Amino acid sequence: MRRGRRAEARAPKRNVDYRRLRNPFPPMRLFSDDEVAALHDAALDVLERLGIKVLSPEACALFERGGATRRDDMVFIGREMVEAALASAPRRIELRAGARDRDLTLELGSLVFQPGAGAPHATDLVNGRRPGDLKSFRELVQITHHFDVLQMMPPLIEPQDVPTHTRHYATLEAQLELSDKFPFIFSRGTGQVEQSFELLRDFRGLSDEAFVKDVHAYTIINTNSPRQLDVPMSLGLIDFARFGQVSIVTPFTLMGAMAPITVGGALTLSHAEALAAITLTQLVNPGAPVCYGTFTSNVDMKSGAPAFGTPEHFRASVLAGQLARHIGLPWRSASGSAANLNDVQAANETQMGLWGCLMGGATVVIHAAGWLEGGLTVSYEKLVTDVEVLQMVAELCAAPDADLGIDALEEVQPGGHFFGAAHTMARYQTEFYDPLVADWSNFGTWTERGAVDATTRATGIWQGILSGPGFTGDGDRLEAFRAKAARMEAAGGALPEGG
Amino acid sequence: MRRGRRAEARAPKRNVDYRRLRNPFPPMRLFSDDEVAALHDAALDVLERLGIKVLSPEACALFERGGATRRDDMVFIGREMVEAALASAPRRIELRAGARDRDLTLELGSLVFQPGAGAPHATDLVNGRRPGDLKSFRELVQITHHFDVLQMMPPLIEPQDVPTHTRHYATLEAQLELSDKFPFIFSRGTGQVEQSFELLRDFRGLSDEAFVKDVHAYTIINTNSPRQLDVPMSLGLIDFARFGQVSIVTPFTLMGAMAPITVGGALTLSHAEALAAITLTQLVNPGAPVCYGTFTSNVDMKSGAPAFGTPEHFRASVLAGQLARHIGLPWRSASGSAANLNDVQAANETQMGLWGCLMGGATVVIHAAGWLEGGLTVSYEKLVTDVEVLQMVAELCAAPDADLGIDALEEVQPGGHFFGAAHTMARYQTEFYDPLVADWSNFGTWTERGAVDATTRATGIWQGILSGPGFTGDGDRLEAFRAKAARMEAAGGALPEGG
Repeated sequence: MRRGRRAEARAPKRNVDYRRLRNPFPPMRLFSDDEVAALHDAALDVLERLGIKVLSPEACALFERGGATRRDDMVFIGREMVEAALASAPRRIELRAGARDRDLTLELGSLVFQPGAGAPHATDLVNGRRPGDLKSFRELVQITHHFDVLQMMPPLIEPQDVPTHTRHYATLEAQLELSDKFPFIFSRGTGQVEQSFELLRDFRGLSDEAFVKDVHAYTIINTNSPRQLDVPMSLGLIDFARFGQVSIVTPFTLMGAMAPITVGGALTLSHAEALAAITLTQLVNPGAPVCYGTFTSNVDMKSGAPAFGTPEHFRASVLAGQLARHIGLPWRSASGSAANLNDVQAANETQMGLWGCLMGGATVVIHAAGWLEGGLTVSYEKLVTDVEVLQMVAELCAAPDADLGIDALEEVQPGGHFFGAAHTMARYQTEFYDPLVADWSNFGTWTERGAVDATTRATGIWQGILSGPGFTGDGDRLEAFRAKAARMEAAGGALPEGG
Repeated sequence: MRRGRRAEARAPKRNVDYRRLRNPFPPMRLFSDDEVAALHDAALDVLERLGIKVLSPEACALFERGGATRRDDMVFIGREMVEAALASAPRRIELRAGARDRDLTLELGSLVFQPGAGAPHATDLVNGRRPGDLKSFRELVQITHHFDVLQMMPPLIEPQDVPTHTRHYATLEAQLELSDKFPFIFSRGTGQVEQSFELLRDFRGLSDEAFVKDVHAYTIINTNSPRQLDVPMSLGLIDFARFGQVSIVTPFTLMGAMAPITVGGALTLSHAEALAAITLTQLVNPGAPVCYGTFTSNVDMKSGAPAFGTPEHFRASVLAGQLARHIGLPWRSASGSAANLNDVQAANETQMGLWGCLMGGATVVIHAAGWLEGGLTVSYEKLVTDVEVLQMVAELCAAPDADLGIDALEEVQPGGHFFGAAHTMARYQTEFYDPLVADWSNFGTWTERGAVDATTRATGIWQGILSGPGFTGDGDRLEAFRAKAARMEAAGGALPEGG
């Protein structure tokens, strides 16, 4: 708690803006431009010749109406359809959050971080590892809200103590009550999505027309690789496109398991699936906001266990970034770790995965903080220690001071020091990044203070956040939200569809 | 130990070469080309106008004879002298190790890793933190030798149980006995350096003429920032240049302490000092091999504590890389961590520092494994866990497989999996990196196996290395080495000079 308070007390002095970042890292290339074009062409060929299985009759009908060939639930999508979709999908998507200084732009070149998402478990050093519940969900929303460098709110963990027909009320309420960051809505059928849009529309004080004019929420669409789009995912694409809200299309492909073992093969599959989903959104509503996404890593071929932050994962991100630039859409990537606790492996894998995304030119990096066990758990402590890395990256996004300090070099004599130089005194409070969790004290001091490691220090930081004032949304609107959700619940809520 | 053996038994299957790496990452730019040229010019101006204090009369005389102005021990070096030195210093340096497959090339574009160096302490989970001794030095040489991704042998820790007048025998003997990697010799006066060269010359079975023809050893030259070159460092530059051996010139400048607080100011100072040292080597022996180096990070301005792996350190590396490309010389950079144990902070800082070096286009990255407490300790476990990161980076240096797996995509039906596909079966043993210390088992299995973290698993790995057969140098030559060192010792050894 001491450190948490200290970090908060100091931060304003530097006045750094972690809310709107541009990626300063030169994009890396894994394949040549010709090879990238060939991969894109191979993906179009997969859609045209091998087809994709679409489990939603509504989506099948939309594809067919758009010109695709259909054989039962197999849909064969011509390349001209995909190209038309890529032409109508916007290159730049403005996201409207709860406050104007939380609004975001998704486009190639902008950079947004999200913590780990969708985990069935939560863990921390105080309460241990447990199935995700609403208390943990709400706490993780508060912790995520606290850090400006986490610019979007993801579905952190699954609150399994809330019945499935009312869970969407609880997760949206938590996001609107405890944060004004751009919120997430799960695609679990039209009923839940439409109710969520209605609740969000009212909370934002908008008419139906105003709601669909801007982008107020996002969902994540995972295909069922290989080459399959299930009912809730299809409906999500349709519903979000219909209401002008943004789908982030992310095939989750593990090389050697649900995707070919080579990075080129896995990306050919992932790219094809993403293009099919993007095409569906544009068939529903040409110009609907949609974000290209990939999440390709590998498995351990001896055990089948998923791995993250590996060289293969890194390469997949770099290649996916090339594909995103090829089609020109904003691109969501992912970091992550397969470690079972917040240890050195966890740190190394998450940062390695992050650099793959950064050097791939990612627009959104999800699972960039807190994600353990390949996504089965979100750790409060890891969220904090990963935020340190993200804040350091955010520092690198700012333009450097080009000053050469000649006056200081003239002032300080050989063998002297710069601590007291006028040049130093003018800058010492603002020049350097002030760490969140790092402890730079020497071994003696650190030992006297109890020899506490970074993970344990992180506990004090999230406890400090949860015991602080935090954010609270507008009380009247929250009351109206709860009243409406209660009426919806009384009317039966909305069960997930086709899961 | 199990994992250590397993890793060894599996590695050959993939036949990856970590011994000769080329940096595949696109270099980042912090300053514009014009700003870099202006910084270079400012550094030349510092040398010409403000001068550098040179504590060695021999070095002062060499500078003066080369055209510099001298006022007591202040030397003012004209830019034409520096430019002549940069013209004669080789762009490409071939290093001759104990075996041809350990030879290295230092030039911009090549990539070499070294573990932490020069620490007064060693630490591991079995024996705890202790002052560096010869046993620890020898063990760390063995562990360093084991990993191909650590291509050079650095002065890992200081063996303080060996008297200073014979320590150079013990450290060189350990390097030649336990490894055939390219060895390090400390610059602690002409006596020690000449004896070390003689011992190395004989061990390699070379004549005096043959020894000076190739590069058989290196030293690291740290200036005493700001603007000061002490006696042992001056003598080291002179002696290594005289014998055609390579000096790696590395001003160690902490922004806000011994360097200006801005990255541009610190690099102006560091660059000036490095240019002065490079100039001295070329005055002694035009064409002598010399490597440009920087190690610039920042301090905590509240405590004065040094910090590493910070955004400031990252930026300094990126800017230093631009300066290295400006002058065209191979460039040594450094990673590191200020953490007091091998925890998440340590991992995050070391990897963040590493990426700064990699994106700066570093030729040599020192302190890339095992370096704790800002260089006061080398940790056996951290050495192992950092090697995992370096091995992953080394994987990224290899050319990718451009295969698109079309046959696999045709073979596997929607919703199926690729585990049994012919395309997978042909590649499953060789496609992916096989981790050294990462444990990808699920939470249940990992818990059943004792819930061991990565640092603790690393203990088993280094223990496995130390209990394995290891490397042993030629017995006859070692015997001759020891006999000659004993004669030198009987004659009084060689005390460090001017330290």
